[in-house]
Amino acid sequence: MRQRRPARSAHAIPQRPFGQVPRGYEPIRVLSDDQVEAIHNAALRVLAEQGMRVLNGRALALYRSAGARVEGNMVFLDPAMVQERLATLPARFTIAARNRGKDLRFGGNDMVFSSVGGPAYVMDLDRGRRDGTLADMQDFLRLCQSLNVIQQESGGPLEPMDLPASTRHLDLYLSQITLLDKSWNLNALGTERTMDGLQMAALSMGWSLDDLARQPMMMGVINTNSPRQLDDPMSQGLIALAEHGQVAIVTPFTLAGAMAPVSLAGALVLQHAEAMFGLVLTQIVRPGVPAMYGGFTSNVDMKTGAPAFGTPEYAKAAQASGQLARRIGAPFRSSNTTAANALDAQAAYESQMSLWGCLMGGAHLVIHAAGWMHGGLTASFEKLILDAEMLGMMQAYFTPMRVDGEALSLEAIAEAGVGGHFFGTAQTMAQYETAFHAPMLSNWDSYPNWQLRGSEEAPVRANRIWKDLLAGYEAPALDAGIREELEAFVARRKAEGGAPTN
Amino acid sequence: MRQRRPARSAHAIPQRPFGQVPRGYEPIRVLSDDQVEAIHNAALRVLAEQGMRVLNGRALALYRSAGARVEGNMVFLDPAMVQERLATLPARFTIAARNRGKDLRFGGNDMVFSSVGGPAYVMDLDRGRRDGTLADMQDFLRLCQSLNVIQQESGGPLEPMDLPASTRHLDLYLSQITLLDKSWNLNALGTERTMDGLQMAALSMGWSLDDLARQPMMMGVINTNSPRQLDDPMSQGLIALAEHGQVAIVTPFTLAGAMAPVSLAGALVLQHAEAMFGLVLTQIVRPGVPAMYGGFTSNVDMKTGAPAFGTPEYAKAAQASGQLARRIGAPFRSSNTTAANALDAQAAYESQMSLWGCLMGGAHLVIHAAGWMHGGLTASFEKLILDAEMLGMMQAYFTPMRVDGEALSLEAIAEAGVGGHFFGTAQTMAQYETAFHAPMLSNWDSYPNWQLRGSEEAPVRANRIWKDLLAGYEAPALDAGIREELEAFVARRKAEGGAPTN
Repeated sequence: MRQRRPARSAHAIPQRPFGQVPRGYEPIRVLSDDQVEAIHNAALRVLAEQGMRVLNGRALALYRSAGARVEGNMVFLDPAMVQERLATLPARFTIAARNRGKDLRFGGNDMVFSSVGGPAYVMDLDRGRRDGTLADMQDFLRLCQSLNVIQQESGGPLEPMDLPASTRHLDLYLSQITLLDKSWNLNALGTERTMDGLQMAALSMGWSLDDLARQPMMMGVINTNSPRQLDDPMSQGLIALAEHGQVAIVTPFTLAGAMAPVSLAGALVLQHAEAMFGLVLTQIVRPGVPAMYGGFTSNVDMKTGAPAFGTPEYAKAAQASGQLARRIGAPFRSSNTTAANALDAQAAYESQMSLWGCLMGGAHLVIHAAGWMHGGLTASFEKLILDAEMLGMMQAYFTPMRVDGEALSLEAIAEAGVGGHFFGTAQTMAQYETAFHAPMLSNWDSYPNWQLRGSEEAPVRANRIWKDLLAGYEAPALDAGIREELEAFVARRKAEGGAPTN
Repeated sequence: MRQRRPARSAHAIPQRPFGQVPRGYEPIRVLSDDQVEAIHNAALRVLAEQGMRVLNGRALALYRSAGARVEGNMVFLDPAMVQERLATLPARFTIAARNRGKDLRFGGNDMVFSSVGGPAYVMDLDRGRRDGTLADMQDFLRLCQSLNVIQQESGGPLEPMDLPASTRHLDLYLSQITLLDKSWNLNALGTERTMDGLQMAALSMGWSLDDLARQPMMMGVINTNSPRQLDDPMSQGLIALAEHGQVAIVTPFTLAGAMAPVSLAGALVLQHAEAMFGLVLTQIVRPGVPAMYGGFTSNVDMKTGAPAFGTPEYAKAAQASGQLARRIGAPFRSSNTTAANALDAQAAYESQMSLWGCLMGGAHLVIHAAGWMHGGLTASFEKLILDAEMLGMMQAYFTPMRVDGEALSLEAIAEAGVGGHFFGTAQTMAQYETAFHAPMLSNWDSYPNWQLRGSEEAPVRANRIWKDLLAGYEAPALDAGIREELEAFVARRKAEGGAPTN
């Protein structure tokens, strides 16, 4: 076939423009309606009969004030109260980005792909695995900005270990605001980190905290300490987010066989109980505040106790979690996970199992959608590219097929003739540039050509792509006055000592 | 967690026992009912108005005798005739294996995973890509026998280039019968190869061809020459299969942008027309004979014309094909495909896209389910293991979650307590051995342990697994008298010259 496109420049990595692609197909249902009801009712029984331990006085008081039975630090919720409180949870909401053209819709058939958040280590082909630095973190953020398929940054792609723990979050937030014009998440570990994020988000828009409450921008992950515990920093984070109209993503970490029952249904009972428990608190704090149901149920390797991700159990649990979230009308957060140690076939098949599990489970937010390795311990530059490719493929898959008169192609079939070909038909000439997903990572050379060109496997190609993207990165515009205010805020908060570190 | 299982012996690769696992969930519907109808009706128009070229006299006569309009070698089918003929196509059937405990169900929610068929080359990590030999082919068959998740062998995993083309199929059939006790497919390229397969299948059971017609054992792929052509050898194969009550898998090779319209809906119109055209012929030859609808629509790289597989378009087309097959009541065949050149992340994500596409598209038969590389040009020993792992994961995913009283785990949750763990609960102790999919290929070591143990990536592990399996292979029993008859048949047919080679 003759060349119809100009040769790519070094930085012209093929990408769709930024934008959400709704899932055009019904989610997969792995549970019957009766089974959803059985898990939901069992979770209500856990909350009513076994209760949750809460390690924060204000949270205990809030639950008590709303009618919960509180004994010491144990909180028991009546099913009717759970139902009543969940009734105010919004099914949809919008998150503003600094570039309002990149605002994000949550709920319905919409999905948001959010980059990896939280790893301690960073890795790439050239430098191996190592502690992260501010420079690594900023490069990672630049790539998140450059990759259109990444719609949101997820609270810091890696810990900059070269910075003090008490003020690291301030450097993170400043980097997120200045290097991205996309939505970004904060670190909700305690009141100070949460409030610093809210203040800086508001400053970045020239808004007050009241403005921010009217149009939420910030989301933070709130992990329960499974089984059945909500700790002090996470209680603080949840309350601060909800009080200011921002989004707590309540996510139990229910590894079946370790922190949750070995029975997948039992692990989901525990997840559902803990998620509802946290969501109820958001609605006690501020009725009607948006919040999300996080599903993170996976399983451990029963021979070693090691956590496993992207397993068949993970995919099934993600789709069941979507059903459970829809049962209570909550927008659903899931993740793209793998326990693989290298960027090999295992990393890809575990991530694919995760993506099909969560996206066909109706996830509205996929955290760790790109860059997650080693069960969440490591942010990988090459995995970021691999995942971006797979996310782009899912966007193309979710784009509905055109089946109108022209698309049915009776004329093209006649034009090509018996035993002919379609390269030169009028239809092909008109549509070839946009007909199919154009990959950034996949190589479709013939085997001999692939060998002649250096036998490059996927990680080597991914390595070149992120370097090309980084070389082509352009920082988004930011008003100089706003930048000064942000820098002054960071300086003042650093002088104050930042946030507690344990 | 303490060791609860004995250490694995070298050959104790974890596997589920042989057996079909029905898909417990509804297929994904990428088309609305109206869209299915639009494609179906457009395909009927292609058959009525544009017609198909048929390069075999007997097939032309058969179509004419059934009321088709035949002009020269062009055949035009009236929609009413298509509907009438398709009405006799069975929605379900059973295929006998030499070991009747390995008979296979086709239709409904059942799936059959069939190994790679047809490549010219073979590849493994030690020896690279090369022409195939009889010894390679036989090793590949031994592995298909050893891997429980492979339920059927698919007509020869590679061409033994060290054997004459005219009689190669006889060595293949003898190897399939003696090295496997599972179902195997024949090479339907022409009457002789097809009839040799049927004769040898019957001999292997001590059956007559009439017995075989009452209980089908043999399946063969019939490719149309897209666009709109049925050639001579494929016509012969289809007719011989159908005459003897065996299963033609009618599979158009509709690469969108090359042999089919660049519009995916248009490619499906062409696929649907050609598949119906072949299926009608099976029912003219022998009303009620089982046959299958093959969907193989993928797309080309529009920059180079190279075929691409495991793309988003492939997944979407596979699921749409399932809807089209169900529209006419035909059991549906699909495939596990990739165009990757190495056993890298691309090979895994393209295969995963294919598997989710075809299995959640309702495929009853997945040909090339294990071992397919290079767009079908190469059978890979390591890809066989990678695919077996991914198929095993899909079986675990398709196994419905238990959601009965015990599985809801209220007692285990109480037993573990707040902030406790589930390693030691009574439920975990009772269920840990079977609770989760036990992988053969995935490695879940921590990163430091993985490094200490040699930093083995997936291909290296797959290489060791197939060697272990081969070392542990045991040939299934075969009656000595039957073996003699088969060998005598092969000797006689070789003396007669075998089959025509072009």
